[in-house]
Amino acid sequence: MIFMPWSWVGRKRVSRHLISWTKWAGMTGMNTVSVSTSHDQALDAMLAPRSVAILGASAQLSKVNGRPLKFLLEKGYAGTIYPVNPKYSQIANLTCYPNVEALPTVPDLAVIAVPAKEVCAAIEALGRKGVRAAVVFSSGFGEMGVEGKEREAALLATARASGVLICGPNCLGLINAFDKVYATFSQYADGNTAPGPVGFVTQSGAFGTAIAALARQRGLGLGYFVNTGNEVDAGFADIMSRVVDDPRIEVAAGYLEGVKDGPGLVALAQHCLLIDKPLVLTKVGRLGAGVRAAASHTGSLAVEDDLFDSVARQYGIVRAHNEEQMLDIIEAFVYTRPPAGDRLGLVTQSGGAGVMMADRAEEVGLVVPRLTAQTEAKLSHIVPGFGASANPVDVTGQFVAEPAILRDSVLTLLADPEIDIGIVWLQLMAAHVDLLIELFSDLKKRSAKPFVVCWVAAPEEAVQGLHRAGIAVLRGAEPAVDAVAALVRHAAARRAWLAAKDQPLPKAKRPTLHINGLPQAGVVPTMQAVQWLVAAGVPMADIELAESEDAAVSAWQRLGGPVALKIESPAITHKTEAGGVRLNLSGEAAVRQAYRDIIQSARKYDPQAMLAGVTVQPMASGDIELVIGVKRDPTFGMMVMLGIGGILVEVLRDVVWRQAPFGVDEARRMLDELRMRAVFDGVRGRPPVDKQVLAVLLSSVSHLAEAMKERLLELDLNPVLMGEKGAVAVDCVMVLMGQRHSAVV
Amino acid sequence: MIFMPWSWVGRKRVSRHLISWTKWAGMTGMNTVSVSTSHDQALDAMLAPRSVAILGASAQLSKVNGRPLKFLLEKGYAGTIYPVNPKYSQIANLTCYPNVEALPTVPDLAVIAVPAKEVCAAIEALGRKGVRAAVVFSSGFGEMGVEGKEREAALLATARASGVLICGPNCLGLINAFDKVYATFSQYADGNTAPGPVGFVTQSGAFGTAIAALARQRGLGLGYFVNTGNEVDAGFADIMSRVVDDPRIEVAAGYLEGVKDGPGLVALAQHCLLIDKPLVLTKVGRLGAGVRAAASHTGSLAVEDDLFDSVARQYGIVRAHNEEQMLDIIEAFVYTRPPAGDRLGLVTQSGGAGVMMADRAEEVGLVVPRLTAQTEAKLSHIVPGFGASANPVDVTGQFVAEPAILRDSVLTLLADPEIDIGIVWLQLMAAHVDLLIELFSDLKKRSAKPFVVCWVAAPEEAVQGLHRAGIAVLRGAEPAVDAVAALVRHAAARRAWLAAKDQPLPKAKRPTLHINGLPQAGVVPTMQAVQWLVAAGVPMADIELAESEDAAVSAWQRLGGPVALKIESPAITHKTEAGGVRLNLSGEAAVRQAYRDIIQSARKYDPQAMLAGVTVQPMASGDIELVIGVKRDPTFGMMVMLGIGGILVEVLRDVVWRQAPFGVDEARRMLDELRMRAVFDGVRGRPPVDKQVLAVLLSSVSHLAEAMKERLLELDLNPVLMGEKGAVAVDCVMVLMGQRHSAVV
Repeated sequence: MIFMPWSWVGRKRVSRHLISWTKWAGMTGMNTVSVSTSHDQALDAMLAPRSVAILGASAQLSKVNGRPLKFLLEKGYAGTIYPVNPKYSQIANLTCYPNVEALPTVPDLAVIAVPAKEVCAAIEALGRKGVRAAVVFSSGFGEMGVEGKEREAALLATARASGVLICGPNCLGLINAFDKVYATFSQYADGNTAPGPVGFVTQSGAFGTAIAALARQRGLGLGYFVNTGNEVDAGFADIMSRVVDDPRIEVAAGYLEGVKDGPGLVALAQHCLLIDKPLVLTKVGRLGAGVRAAASHTGSLAVEDDLFDSVARQYGIVRAHNEEQMLDIIEAFVYTRPPAGDRLGLVTQSGGAGVMMADRAEEVGLVVPRLTAQTEAKLSHIVPGFGASANPVDVTGQFVAEPAILRDSVLTLLADPEIDIGIVWLQLMAAHVDLLIELFSDLKKRSAKPFVVCWVAAPEEAVQGLHRAGIAVLRGAEPAVDAVAALVRHAAARRAWLAAKDQPLPKAKRPTLHINGLPQAGVVPTMQAVQWLVAAGVPMADIELAESEDAAVSAWQRLGGPVALKIESPAITHKTEAGGVRLNLSGEAAVRQAYRDIIQSARKYDPQAMLAGVTVQPMASGDIELVIGVKRDPTFGMMVMLGIGGILVEVLRDVVWRQAPFGVDEARRMLDELRMRAVFDGVRGRPPVDKQVLAVLLSSVSHLAEAMKERLLELDLNPVLMGEKGAVAVDCVMVLMGQRHSAVV
Repeated sequence: MIFMPWSWVGRKRVSRHLISWTKWAGMTGMNTVSVSTSHDQALDAMLAPRSVAILGASAQLSKVNGRPLKFLLEKGYAGTIYPVNPKYSQIANLTCYPNVEALPTVPDLAVIAVPAKEVCAAIEALGRKGVRAAVVFSSGFGEMGVEGKEREAALLATARASGVLICGPNCLGLINAFDKVYATFSQYADGNTAPGPVGFVTQSGAFGTAIAALARQRGLGLGYFVNTGNEVDAGFADIMSRVVDDPRIEVAAGYLEGVKDGPGLVALAQHCLLIDKPLVLTKVGRLGAGVRAAASHTGSLAVEDDLFDSVARQYGIVRAHNEEQMLDIIEAFVYTRPPAGDRLGLVTQSGGAGVMMADRAEEVGLVVPRLTAQTEAKLSHIVPGFGASANPVDVTGQFVAEPAILRDSVLTLLADPEIDIGIVWLQLMAAHVDLLIELFSDLKKRSAKPFVVCWVAAPEEAVQGLHRAGIAVLRGAEPAVDAVAALVRHAAARRAWLAAKDQPLPKAKRPTLHINGLPQAGVVPTMQAVQWLVAAGVPMADIELAESEDAAVSAWQRLGGPVALKIESPAITHKTEAGGVRLNLSGEAAVRQAYRDIIQSARKYDPQAMLAGVTVQPMASGDIELVIGVKRDPTFGMMVMLGIGGILVEVLRDVVWRQAPFGVDEARRMLDELRMRAVFDGVRGRPPVDKQVLAVLLSSVSHLAEAMKERLLELDLNPVLMGEKGAVAVDCVMVLMGQRHSAVV
């Protein structure tokens, strides 16, 4: 039995999520088994410790190894603090212990602020003492060349042997602001760190600190701030899965430089969908140069970014382009209910702002609908004559004198059945802050639909007042639309995921494969590959293998009409290059000649190649040329690709990916993500193609990929032709691996 | 003589710019004629008045008609102020005059704050008094339906008859902060309005106020703030051309909702290039929905946004996506010298920030080069071992302890011959502001190359300190890269424009057209159009007109090889739809049959159509299918389009435009702006095409368009096929106008 959905989810995370799922099972009616593990206990000890030891604590409280103690004391940590350093007997009126052995109790968490070469010994001592979790500040590991990498491997081995879960090394540490845990030396902790509903986990210390500081500037409170550093042990997904289970956290925010643990990230994303806590990520390394730099920086295995992007869409991860956009989106999620759809209503005091937002909405896929005639009529009585009572509504600056204009306009717009969510744009208004806070608070109470405020150059007290009223405040027209688009997309992704979760994936025809009967590594003979594909429900063009000239002629006669002949050899994957393709052949003479030409060219191209003969296929045609493929990705496993073919795939890279397996509905969403999706609706007067047929094909390929995941390295269906008569895959190349990569999948 | 370059430049602007050009002639060695006009004197009176009358002035200084007086007094305007209102004899200790006639001298500028219906009378009175300029706050004009539009037309007629130049109506007025002129009621004037080197002109009052307030928040001083409102008379380009000539202004910034005066904008842009003052614009109305809303809002004629965008690129206008990006770009221009090229060096304290900036740089077309081996070696001795000494350079947080790390890294990077401009990224550092200001000031003095600082969550005093040192401070990694990209593109556009300015456009072959001999309005007979195109230097596929079946056969024989037959009729432009096209015909029988079929189909399609016969062409082929066209745009005149053809033009809209005429170098830049430009370099193993050939073709089309501009409505070359053998236009449709649209072009 090789069809094992979810089997690739690492044990560790399965247990982690079973716990979380149990917690929510009552809400969702799910039936799961409760399992508690030492790993989870260690995460609890790390993120909500009742006692903290600081190894290498300094009496100079401004130094890296003095700052955790300073913060814990200043901010009022209620647990027990154990400074550990043989140089002192007391620090800041606390007893300082010479070593771990001397500690009077077993602390939940240890902060390790000693030189790299002393870290392993410290971990061993902690293990002996029974400490379950440690934050390692020390640098000099994976980020420091070969020697550092060796030291890092030793650290992991020591941690596992000692039963100590590590955050780091080479990290700034962590903050749990609710419980006043400051196991950090980050300069972010220097200022006000009042907790809020955002859990923030960052791979980068410096960039993460910058983001945390920006969040504070905006009045967004971080409940957690965790820098995972080199992630030798506990990684981003691990730690975040514990953070989001804190009921005080409403939004999960992350900064990533690379994904080391694909299955963990996918499991985390699904967990977040289940418990309805949006996961908002900024991940750097979008392009080639970026990926190279990220690899050299963090030593992490950089995944191809478009795979990451597709997985994010598949599992409802909200991806932000950069730090400011991430904070805009978080602001929107913290204060705004999910919209029921994608139809945006705009109210502004400036026509231009309305235009800018309408433009941006169109660019990011939101709809700015016409309002109903009734609504427009009603608005025309509210809005001054030199304003606009259509969507975008322009109430003009007149509302300052008559606030009812703004209030009634927003209420009327949001009440329109064509509208799902609103943005209200205004600017400055330093003299009218109290009035506006009251007005918006009233609107929030009276409107059943969500809205955000876009307030350009907002006075600080306006932001604070609206936050108190539970209203998101964005700072610019385009960022506001982008944030609303994130709300809309997340709500849609969650609805789709919940719907798919409760129905098993439609039974696709699945080939009966016997793993022991599979051929050797390398290119699978075309006839065999086609057989499996057909068995899996993939519509393949008719094909016959001709092992002789005569056989080719017979095949042509059977197939009827003009045919294509292609060389068949496990050694030749680039058939055209090898002179191994002849198209549009009619008549016996042409077929015979083509057979001879092909065999001759192939022998010349590669004299060593085993030639199995020539495949014979009827000529196929279609309006749209697609490429569908499967790639085995080291991070995310079996990934299915859809691209628009011909010259376009190479030049425009208009391709989308999904993790296998997936259902037909998910496949439909793939089509909608292609930039050139308009071709499916028929261009130049051609009729639209049947998207459902294509979606079924993609889903079938995904099931085949899942079924073959222990051996499949690569599958390429190119071209897949689509026309009025449906879809047909004309050519295929399937490549198997030699042995199971159990470490990868 | 119908070839009159620049003749379309409105008189008004020509004179305006001749003045400016004269001023700069000494610098550039140009030889121009000095002309001063009353229009320019009126602009001077409007923007730098030595005396201001306020018609409708109120003693309630917080009201719209009281605020200009309040601001003038509070901020210390040194000129004379004349309140005018029969209700008062004194306001704020100033004599208040009952009417314009009673004023003791002729004021330079009048602010009109009276109801709409009284404005015309006021303008007449001002005209009689000899006042040359007025700012009209009053609303109730073009923005208020049919009646308002009529009132606006009357206002313009009155203004012209009275010799008064108007800013407005329906505007917030203007500020000249250098000379403390506050002819405005904008809430922006409520705060600190200390002048700076930015001249800001905005069509929208509310959005413009928001932008001005944001500029103030960033410490960017506005020397001018002008809201042009309905632009009944003086428009954006008009007013900005006066603003940029103020030597205290270094950067021109504008917010547009529509372009009413295309030639004026182009002239302004060229003037700005000449005097080296960047013109940075935000224009809303990018997309369909947006354009509709803009039209309903401002009543201005919305131009197709992609034309605007292309014209901006052609004339070095820097277009910002939104208000924040505009301010980022302005910040960069105010403090940064133009870079010599597009090669970006990055220094950060966070690897992730380096990756994010490298990604963004690639996306916006900048190069992040490898450093020379010497530079990398030098950096490896400066940067800590856990940092990165390649570009992007990661100095790590260690520089806080050892500032020399940062200073020496930046100097070393910028000294590399591969680098043109640098970005230094850092965050927070509240405790090290003074040290860093000193460090960057020192860098600024010691580096010959420009750099900007990207300081995330920067303390306010850091921004102020760096501004004092003449250093731009950006707030985020991506915005910093975008701003640098604007510097790079502007510098390149200016170099290209200056180079082109000094050499006359290469003499293209130009058809000898006699305007009186041109055919009637409508579709030009294909043979005639081809003749003109060939005469203009456009390579056209061979073509013959066959007026009979026999003639078609002879043509086929002469041309040799397979041919295409197409219906020729002035009434039929959609030939395929009319069944009027037969391709790939070989042999006499096939040609005869095709001729008969085509004529029959065409008669059936349109029994009334005059059928001139059938054109006969050899079949053409190429690797790339292009569309080249000319469109007569009401705003920008003759515009030449290049698009990548086939299904792509419709689905992807990968097209670029240029205003005709233009040279070959400019045409080369068009090619580089296509998203699919990679196809020119050869895809799927095809050889690259000769871009120069295509550029010459485009330039030739632009000269033809210019030569025919009095009559040409539309020209469509589709397809133009490109391959190894060069380019050939296969089909053409040329349409003429019935009469000269002198009002338009």
